[in-house]
Amino acid sequence: MAKPEKIRVSSAALHTLVESMFVKLGACAADAKTIAEVLVWANLRGVDSHGISRIPRYVELFESGEAKVRPNVVVAQPRASIVTIDADGAPGPVAMSRAVREAIATARNAGIAWAAVRGTVHTGAIGYYTSQVAAAGMAGIGIVAGVPNMAYTGARGAAVATSPLSIAVPSSSYGEVVLDMATAVIALGRIAQLRASGTPLPEGAALTAKGEPTTDPNLAEIPLPMAGAKGAGLSLMIELLTGVLVGNPVVSRFHSGSEDGKRHRQNGTIIAIDVEAFMPLAEFKSSVDATLGTLKGLSRAVESAPILFPGERGARVYREREAGGIPIAVGVWQKLGKDAAKLGVPLPDALPPAA
Amino acid sequence: MAKPEKIRVSSAALHTLVESMFVKLGACAADAKTIAEVLVWANLRGVDSHGISRIPRYVELFESGEAKVRPNVVVAQPRASIVTIDADGAPGPVAMSRAVREAIATARNAGIAWAAVRGTVHTGAIGYYTSQVAAAGMAGIGIVAGVPNMAYTGARGAAVATSPLSIAVPSSSYGEVVLDMATAVIALGRIAQLRASGTPLPEGAALTAKGEPTTDPNLAEIPLPMAGAKGAGLSLMIELLTGVLVGNPVVSRFHSGSEDGKRHRQNGTIIAIDVEAFMPLAEFKSSVDATLGTLKGLSRAVESAPILFPGERGARVYREREAGGIPIAVGVWQKLGKDAAKLGVPLPDALPPAA
Repeated sequence: MAKPEKIRVSSAALHTLVESMFVKLGACAADAKTIAEVLVWANLRGVDSHGISRIPRYVELFESGEAKVRPNVVVAQPRASIVTIDADGAPGPVAMSRAVREAIATARNAGIAWAAVRGTVHTGAIGYYTSQVAAAGMAGIGIVAGVPNMAYTGARGAAVATSPLSIAVPSSSYGEVVLDMATAVIALGRIAQLRASGTPLPEGAALTAKGEPTTDPNLAEIPLPMAGAKGAGLSLMIELLTGVLVGNPVVSRFHSGSEDGKRHRQNGTIIAIDVEAFMPLAEFKSSVDATLGTLKGLSRAVESAPILFPGERGARVYREREAGGIPIAVGVWQKLGKDAAKLGVPLPDALPPAA
Repeated sequence: MAKPEKIRVSSAALHTLVESMFVKLGACAADAKTIAEVLVWANLRGVDSHGISRIPRYVELFESGEAKVRPNVVVAQPRASIVTIDADGAPGPVAMSRAVREAIATARNAGIAWAAVRGTVHTGAIGYYTSQVAAAGMAGIGIVAGVPNMAYTGARGAAVATSPLSIAVPSSSYGEVVLDMATAVIALGRIAQLRASGTPLPEGAALTAKGEPTTDPNLAEIPLPMAGAKGAGLSLMIELLTGVLVGNPVVSRFHSGSEDGKRHRQNGTIIAIDVEAFMPLAEFKSSVDATLGTLKGLSRAVESAPILFPGERGARVYREREAGGIPIAVGVWQKLGKDAAKLGVPLPDALPPAA
């Protein structure tokens, strides 16, 4: 099967489009801007599965009432280093960005902060949030859990979520170092991409809806946990630390059989650690540089393949796409166009094809 | 090859042996007791690679000066929720147990605490420390990094450490839920066990000293990271969050070529999150129970194989070994016996063979 046809759109035009659409959907100006920032960031970084292709899903969630376009977000600080954000169904970018701001402000005083978001939807690429913490001169850790879509060792069918973990720290010469990984072998969005291009999955990455191993992208429904019981266990612990801890468990309710238990919802936590509590920020950044430089300078397993630090590839794609535009599959663009037309928002022109 | 011959020793006798040996080595009574507690716990849980078999290595580290039997541990609290423990070469069980106590006490007030240990040696099974946090009614997270012994995606040879991650929470009916995982596919201790029993490694778990893939336990030297770039990246981030953040980087110095850079040392962090900042502890524990009960009650992939939560197998082995004694390979017992004899400590009698 041929690669799907793509157009290219500038990140600025895409940002304006997304912002305009969410304003028309009823979001306040600040929230619309935040959502655009988070979704376009994912496209800029090359994580297209978490970018503008998700907009139609947010629209569905607003329509079904699972998400709220004008949520009543309630922030509380029960302890010096803990902030809770009751998201009231706010879109993930709005709720998680609030968590980032609260975590940074709280960590400046307390040294470390745990900002727990209760009841949001689709958080998008969590590497965005930890990157923001790192850009503020802190170390950031982010975890998110939601509705079960991944296998758990020993169980049949989808049992837990592909709960991602992200860790980011600032450096001096290398920008933000950003690990952003699902607890699955490969994410659902990646399976969708392989399906679109007709590429088989690697062995051991997914099961069919009936729970049989498969490499056929058309039959793959349930991602397997990374590293077997480790990925399954890590996903479960993330559910306990995010959902159960804030009184909004997802796994137990999902499997209860009730209709309400199947509702889309997510909980997430942002941890910020103020580097200045340990040493001057510049010293830390230099030391991160020394570690990355050492690693990148080691003998290569394959001479032509450079050794990369977490987030290095995404940063390179970001620079390329910021300069040359974001490639978007025509199918995604057409689907988005339908939603935009309904809202009376014009789609921006595509960039001319590269020479 | 036949399984190595084993004797069985009661956990109480083993505890007394270890405590006596460390007192004779010069440790203060409290430290000797802590070391015995941590090492025997690993044996009780079935993690024999991190139990009493490590004692000869501690003795070596005392002799080489890499570890100190009477360290000058300095504790500071630069911020309300951050504690630093300068371990001065204290054995891991001493330094990390101190971190657990400080983290729990600090989290009671601040809500969350980050206790960073700088410059310890062999921490042992980090699941012990997070279990202690969970037993105090908090959620615990532990990370440790040390001298490179694992591959990093794209690099030849050992580049980063098998840096473990542990997360534990309390439950009501299931004891502590304890995830304890290396960032490697299989830990070095497990490779040693497979070597001893002549069992081939799984595919994709390790490299030879020259960096070639192998399943031969006699040639396997360098564990591969779990889930490829994910495990490698996670290990690197743990080094940045533990070693670099406390001014004691290990990876960059190890590869610098200096003799000092190869010295054995580890840094570790314990995070405690006070559940009571979010909800009454009893309510949290019930909700954890509901999640575990749900998971364990799902349809099984294989009817005869129960679905396990993280740490469930270890808890079962603990009960069995507490009642029936700890099996110890004769080779390990003889090696330990030599060190004990030098210290003038008698080895306890083995239990009579099971009927």
